[in-house]
Order: sequence, then structure tokens, then C-alpha cells
Amino acid sequence: MYVILVYDMGEKRVSKMMKHCRKYLNWIQNSVFEGEITEVKLKELEIGARKIMNENEDSLIIFKSRNERWLDKQVIGVERMSTDNFL
Amino acid sequence: MYVILVYDMGEKRVSKMMKHCRKYLNWIQNSVFEGEITEVKLKELEIGARKIMNENEDSLIIFKSRNERWLDKQVIGVERMSTDNFL
Repeated sequence: MYVILVYDMGEKRVSKMMKHCRKYLNWIQNSVFEGEITEVKLKELEIGARKIMNENEDSLIIFKSRNERWLDKQVIGVERMSTDNFL
Repeated sequence: MYVILVYDMGEKRVSKMMKHCRKYLNWIQNSVFEGEITEVKLKELEIGARKIMNENEDSLIIFKSRNERWLDKQVIGVERMSTDNFL
């Protein structure tokens, strides 16, 4: 399935969450990830994310679509994902 | 159509962009919006956003889906949208 993941974390936890999410998805913008992922891997991602985040303060939203083709993506301005490989 | 909008802006432009996007969509997380919008209104949103942003530094991504039902949304942690009316 195709997912878009966005988070809003306390500053101390941001870099840990970013590293965690990048194991599973492609980073496309500050705190936004997307990619194809299996149900099992997504569950693994979620379990790991819950360990990193403070669920009383932080927010993580996952949009799931069975097919990427149902979504059209438009990027305006800088395409940050192009630097993904250099981080 | 249903859209998810995420932006990554220079600090000086963030609040202006937030105000602009809230005219058209629902704020669901720091720099993330979603909602039903017409093609015409989305174009209006985009034109206004381009005026606010610095296209060499800032990034705005719009995911468009013809139907919200094609997307399943999971929120983990704090649901920030619940405070939307108080801002």
C-alpha cells in the first residue's frame, strides 16, 4: 500500500523519528514521508514510532491508500526529496 | 476533490501561509492541511501560496485524490485538529 506520513514532534525527538521513518519510507519534506509499504512493515514502523514519541505531546498521522495512482502529487517550490540521498 | 497539503516554509512566512491555507482547508497538524476543495478554489489557493512563499527556499506539496474514501487516515498521539476552532 502507499502511505503519506506526517509528524509533529517535540524538538528532542525529531531526529530520532526522522531516522526511524527513513528506514521505511522516502523523505519528501521536513517531517513528511511517503512510499510503498506492506501492512507488516507499516505496523513495525508504527510500533517503533510509538516508542520514540510522547503520545501526549506529539502527533503522527498516516494516510493510507491502496494504490498510489489514486493520488496526484504537485510540488511547488523546492523539491527537498532530491537531496535525500545526501543526508 | 480531496487534498492533503503540506508545507515547509521559512519562519517569517509560516504564519502568513497558515492563515492563507486555513481559508480553504482544515488544519490537522503543524504545516499539514486537508479537506474537500474544488479545482477553482485549489487554483486560487495555489496562486495565493506562490505569492507568500519563496519558491527558491520553501516547499509546498499538494496530494490530490478524487475521492476521500480512497484514503484511510490514522492519527497516533495528539489530534491537533481538535483545537482548530480555538486558534
